[in-house]
Amino acid sequence: MTTYERFFSRSAALMQQSAIRRMGSLLAQKHDVISFAPGYPAPETFPWPELQEIARELLTGGDGSVLQYGPTRGLRPLLDAIAGIMAERGAPTTIERLLVSTGSQQGLDLVARVLVDPGDVVLVELPTYTGAITAFRNVQAEMVGVPQDTDGISLEALEATHAALVAQGRRIRFLYVVPNFQNPTGLLIGLPKRQALLEWAARRDLLIVEDDPYRELFFEDSTTEEEVRPIRADDHDGRVIYLSSFSKTLAPGFRVAWIDAPPAIASKLEMAKQSEDLLTGSLDQRIVYETCRRGILRRQLPLLRRHYQHKRDVMVDALHATFGDRLSWPPPRGGFFLWATLPQPIDADRLLNRAVDHGVIYVAGEAFFVDGSGKSLVRLSFSAPTPARIREGVRRLGSAVSEELR
Amino acid sequence: MTTYERFFSRSAALMQQSAIRRMGSLLAQKHDVISFAPGYPAPETFPWPELQEIARELLTGGDGSVLQYGPTRGLRPLLDAIAGIMAERGAPTTIERLLVSTGSQQGLDLVARVLVDPGDVVLVELPTYTGAITAFRNVQAEMVGVPQDTDGISLEALEATHAALVAQGRRIRFLYVVPNFQNPTGLLIGLPKRQALLEWAARRDLLIVEDDPYRELFFEDSTTEEEVRPIRADDHDGRVIYLSSFSKTLAPGFRVAWIDAPPAIASKLEMAKQSEDLLTGSLDQRIVYETCRRGILRRQLPLLRRHYQHKRDVMVDALHATFGDRLSWPPPRGGFFLWATLPQPIDADRLLNRAVDHGVIYVAGEAFFVDGSGKSLVRLSFSAPTPARIREGVRRLGSAVSEELR
Repeated sequence: MTTYERFFSRSAALMQQSAIRRMGSLLAQKHDVISFAPGYPAPETFPWPELQEIARELLTGGDGSVLQYGPTRGLRPLLDAIAGIMAERGAPTTIERLLVSTGSQQGLDLVARVLVDPGDVVLVELPTYTGAITAFRNVQAEMVGVPQDTDGISLEALEATHAALVAQGRRIRFLYVVPNFQNPTGLLIGLPKRQALLEWAARRDLLIVEDDPYRELFFEDSTTEEEVRPIRADDHDGRVIYLSSFSKTLAPGFRVAWIDAPPAIASKLEMAKQSEDLLTGSLDQRIVYETCRRGILRRQLPLLRRHYQHKRDVMVDALHATFGDRLSWPPPRGGFFLWATLPQPIDADRLLNRAVDHGVIYVAGEAFFVDGSGKSLVRLSFSAPTPARIREGVRRLGSAVSEELR
Repeated sequence: MTTYERFFSRSAALMQQSAIRRMGSLLAQKHDVISFAPGYPAPETFPWPELQEIARELLTGGDGSVLQYGPTRGLRPLLDAIAGIMAERGAPTTIERLLVSTGSQQGLDLVARVLVDPGDVVLVELPTYTGAITAFRNVQAEMVGVPQDTDGISLEALEATHAALVAQGRRIRFLYVVPNFQNPTGLLIGLPKRQALLEWAARRDLLIVEDDPYRELFFEDSTTEEEVRPIRADDHDGRVIYLSSFSKTLAPGFRVAWIDAPPAIASKLEMAKQSEDLLTGSLDQRIVYETCRRGILRRQLPLLRRHYQHKRDVMVDALHATFGDRLSWPPPRGGFFLWATLPQPIDADRLLNRAVDHGVIYVAGEAFFVDGSGKSLVRLSFSAPTPARIREGVRRLGSAVSEELR
């Protein structure tokens, strides 16, 4: 028996290999490729000695629960620590609203399963995060994109899109936004617009799914902490499902993130998680909790801001030096990404083969657009490579572009 | 806004709190309750000093990938180690067929998403594992149960059930079985019957999902290694999707398990996993790999067999002493569970409140039956409590039963 098409669900028939994950495989096969592709944090920033010490203390065997099954909601002390983080972000919460997820990817997947039936519409930013596209596609949502202004999603376009869908009799489930250093554009939604989105959601009786992995990584030369205030902080109506993560601030290999949602939704998300993996890794949750309790995570944040701001500077300088004004991008004020428009008439996806030959990779913009546009855009991640590798990678990208234009 | 019913998907509307997970919450709230409920391994068997040393070596910071994102399929050296384990089980495999999952619960969930559309039929044993019921229910499968004989699922009942469903025009997707020390009954499917199931699947053009977490935990006084040969080992037609796990042999807190499936199916499972959590924990996979590489896992297995066999003996002796012949069960020849029939007319679910008052819990049988039967049955897990606690727990159960019969 060699073909299995007849056994696949409708959902499986729609499933696709993620563009970012594909880049990861490509990277693993090639030697000396500089990767601007996946949004990997820089492992040299991880607090290794502290993590080593924590693991040593946890693995004495004195507490069997460190490696045992545990509650689906998450380790209770970690949930309390997360509630503390939420309060610091201006969004005090309660345990009934919280759920630890196996990375924010699981959070997106759980939200999709709990809220979406096949054919339902999910409103997303244009462009938007590919991992969200994957999660929404896998529940057979129809994603409709709303363009962004320099201060984030366009309210006029949002209203017009909504009206058109309602006129078509479509059922819209929620709006998905990444308000802080959006993936891939790096844009921030302005504070007045955040308030306006809440009012819009109440008026239209919709939910907002707010995905906020990068908020701690604001660059202090251009962004204040007030500007990254979560939409959730001003939600007094129970409209917002908020996701955040320890992957960018501590380390992604732990797969520890969280969801804050109205209790009735949190309870359904928990039931969905019972099916998906029973619980998030026990040792991982313990280690992450200890980094909170011991103040290690808190000490990391200013270091990370400076680290990534410096790498942003290195990439921006290198791009200016290599491309002059042939390349343009909105200035990244935080996060991991620079979102660049290639010179006409270059197709980013077609350029990729040439870039690989030159020893550099990125993610072609198309992967972030639910409407098939974005062909001249590239997402360049400056987070993982060293400054020297960033410079060399930009030089290689310059050669690939020059060849393509020749 | 306080009600959210209008936002829930059809799948969410069907979701239920798992009976076993509910027991876990109950346990967390009460003092001095002896738990025969969840199938927790015994933490005193975990190889703590070895794990501590492995974590120390991994967390030096010398290899950043230990805490970084990684491939969705799983850490390559771990996949190779898993291929080695499969070969030892008589089922040699290839990398294209393997996927690391975040516990076997995720494996079941991925299989369900890739193979089942709402309304499709999944055939299961009667009774069957609750985690599978959860995963299949969450994709809106209709589960149809097939009774078991003492050597596992009844072939006559399977054929009759299949014929009746076909006559009704129903689409049947696969048969789910736990052939070794089935959860909850502890039964083994006999070797001739395993072969017959393969022939049946080929004749009916169906897949078999074989869930095999307990096979290493056979009790040497009553079971040989030949008797736990996977169905997968004799599958030359690509009919079997095989799941197994490190949760029962190493520790469940790592959430590391695997799926072996025909490459076309494995590829879809990988895409589903990209949506569910991108990857299984990187540190967890590393640690598990190191326990394979260093021979730690292999050294554990005979110790675990003796450990759980002894606890089985303690529970059986205590049950005989307390209940005489008022309680009956199939003798557990491996695994974690004893499946007991209560004296008439006791309802296991109703007895539970009284048992909690006496300081002992179990899982009422109903949770394992997709047809609402099983009201006089209890699943007693002997794996986690110490021998002294097993004896005391059985004494408490005896008091609860006596009171109930009074």
